[in-house]
Amino acid sequence: VSGGEAPPAPWCVVVIGAGLIGASIGRALTEAGHRVHLVDALPSHARVAESLGAGSTEPPPPDQVRLVVVAVPPRALAAVIEDALDRYPGATVTDVGSVKAGVLEALWRHPEVSRYVGSHPMAGSQHSGPVTARADLFVDRTWVVAPHRRSSPSALATVSALAEACGARVVVMDVAEHDAAVARVSHLPHLMSVLMAGHLTGVPAGDLLLAGQGLRDVTRIAGSDPDLWEQIVSSNSAAVLAELRQIRARLDSMIEAVDGSANGGSASGDSAGEVSAALRRELDRGVQGTHAIPGKHGAAPVTYAEVVVAIPDAPGALGRLFADVGEAGVNVEDVSIEHDRNRQVGYLSLAVTPDAEPGLTAWMRDRGWDVQA
Amino acid sequence: VSGGEAPPAPWCVVVIGAGLIGASIGRALTEAGHRVHLVDALPSHARVAESLGAGSTEPPPPDQVRLVVVAVPPRALAAVIEDALDRYPGATVTDVGSVKAGVLEALWRHPEVSRYVGSHPMAGSQHSGPVTARADLFVDRTWVVAPHRRSSPSALATVSALAEACGARVVVMDVAEHDAAVARVSHLPHLMSVLMAGHLTGVPAGDLLLAGQGLRDVTRIAGSDPDLWEQIVSSNSAAVLAELRQIRARLDSMIEAVDGSANGGSASGDSAGEVSAALRRELDRGVQGTHAIPGKHGAAPVTYAEVVVAIPDAPGALGRLFADVGEAGVNVEDVSIEHDRNRQVGYLSLAVTPDAEPGLTAWMRDRGWDVQA
Repeated sequence: VSGGEAPPAPWCVVVIGAGLIGASIGRALTEAGHRVHLVDALPSHARVAESLGAGSTEPPPPDQVRLVVVAVPPRALAAVIEDALDRYPGATVTDVGSVKAGVLEALWRHPEVSRYVGSHPMAGSQHSGPVTARADLFVDRTWVVAPHRRSSPSALATVSALAEACGARVVVMDVAEHDAAVARVSHLPHLMSVLMAGHLTGVPAGDLLLAGQGLRDVTRIAGSDPDLWEQIVSSNSAAVLAELRQIRARLDSMIEAVDGSANGGSASGDSAGEVSAALRRELDRGVQGTHAIPGKHGAAPVTYAEVVVAIPDAPGALGRLFADVGEAGVNVEDVSIEHDRNRQVGYLSLAVTPDAEPGLTAWMRDRGWDVQA
Repeated sequence: VSGGEAPPAPWCVVVIGAGLIGASIGRALTEAGHRVHLVDALPSHARVAESLGAGSTEPPPPDQVRLVVVAVPPRALAAVIEDALDRYPGATVTDVGSVKAGVLEALWRHPEVSRYVGSHPMAGSQHSGPVTARADLFVDRTWVVAPHRRSSPSALATVSALAEACGARVVVMDVAEHDAAVARVSHLPHLMSVLMAGHLTGVPAGDLLLAGQGLRDVTRIAGSDPDLWEQIVSSNSAAVLAELRQIRARLDSMIEAVDGSANGGSASGDSAGEVSAALRRELDRGVQGTHAIPGKHGAAPVTYAEVVVAIPDAPGALGRLFADVGEAGVNVEDVSIEHDRNRQVGYLSLAVTPDAEPGLTAWMRDRGWDVQA
């Protein structure tokens, strides 16, 4: 499915569940030249997905099916996968569920479990309808493929090829490793958001007039479908519990740190400086954690180059400086002011992509500005 | 400062601290016709703010100053306000700090405390520089004005007029009430974000490849300046502690609910159904909490009208339906599919502003679609 070679023969693919994920997979595979057949318990979902170019609602000849993608809610997964293994005897079967161990356990005694390899694309939510389906939903996203002891190499290859055909970046992970990872980076953050949002139900309405963007960001995902999340958390409860217990220990430390920062010293006799330092360590750790998250869409964070210009000692000149930066035609990602305390001089620091830095430096020097080397 | 009357005489205003907040206030007041003088410990900050139209860096004649706005970091507030009360004998003095009680306590014995009324605009962060300052930063935002037992009515009126001149909506609140409110809707959410982000420092790097938008949203504010937040949380620690302890109790309930949802029943003998119901209640409470937050910029949430169209039983027709909706020239806020399980019929539900609903309904009927009454 990669470029440069003759195009591979089109596959006959069945997508079961024409929600956002299923319909988007249908659109991506159809665009890649494969034949997609759509099945949904709600015929109107399948028809809308069909009208959006996600495939056909006609049933396929069962023995021509190469791949079945099961994109139904978590509680229905095991039964639908089992049925697909029985119904399409030559097909690899995968699913797109958020938790992998329970489903595999339920399928473990199926004689054809070697044809099942679970997967998990990190995009969208399983519960929305097909109307917002997009062929590029998975482009540059991580798509976990989770083989197991009994899965066949060809099933693993087929599911990996599916993810690549959708433009995703394949990450192969063990089932237990996957479930622990999503507990940490998806299920725990969801429950933290729920905890904060739930707390607001006991807050006076007048207080909420003071809500800013920060509160909205922290609580946004708590508004997601509680039925879906009940299924997700229940099916990964052991891994989620381990994370929640670590958070509780950390919350206790934070309570102690805030308690100590009050009015210069805690009951245990620490000095105000020491306990404020404990709060500061918690806050610093939070900043560090935000840096640990890879950039948008999982790409490595971009490191910008800095062009630093001395701020002239006259208002009119500074206006011209901004104008000259604007006319340089360079996309400035960030602007900040730096200081030299000893010399009472200020510098304007312009963050640009590394390739734009030499051009902007030359442009500004040409116009007479003092650009730092 | 409200419309319809002759414009009031311009005020002479001093803004101390030319960061994002101070420089934005300077720009808004300058645009409203007032004379603004800028002071900053870092002269380059004041000069940049001046070049952006936030006022002049020339010192004003002290006895002409009508209002002083102190927009410096929390730990410097009390000393700078005290100095302003001494230096400008006829001026009302306000500040824009996030916590109000500690500053007032420090000023309580000042003979001129009647001229001080604290305030708190709900926008931006005090620690960023002036380069992103905007005259409209406060438009339609909440701006808390917090009078006290000794403040004069004219000082309260002057500070309220400041907020209105900046386009904000004034909310008058008692000092203690304000501090409790920001503990709930700002400081607690910040610490929850810090807790989650800090936890990521102990997560394997490979797991973070699975991070989605949800994790980024929950942890975004944890990346804010830890020095500023140490000052904010320390100065409001009693109120913050009360909230953290409530969250601690709620986290225990959540841990119990998740524990119970595992493998059909908890150690205490509850049935799987009961304990899963406990998890569901936590999730439902979270959804409810997100609905408690007023809409963007503090406005009441918009209620949309629904235009519901029967989905025709043919793929080509559905394509035409989408095209006709697109050509109606109406801004569709949301699209979803509804079902009639008994009749196997689907409906496309289009959410639009109430004023657009009659027009869209007529337009679709004109084109032959079956629109529900």
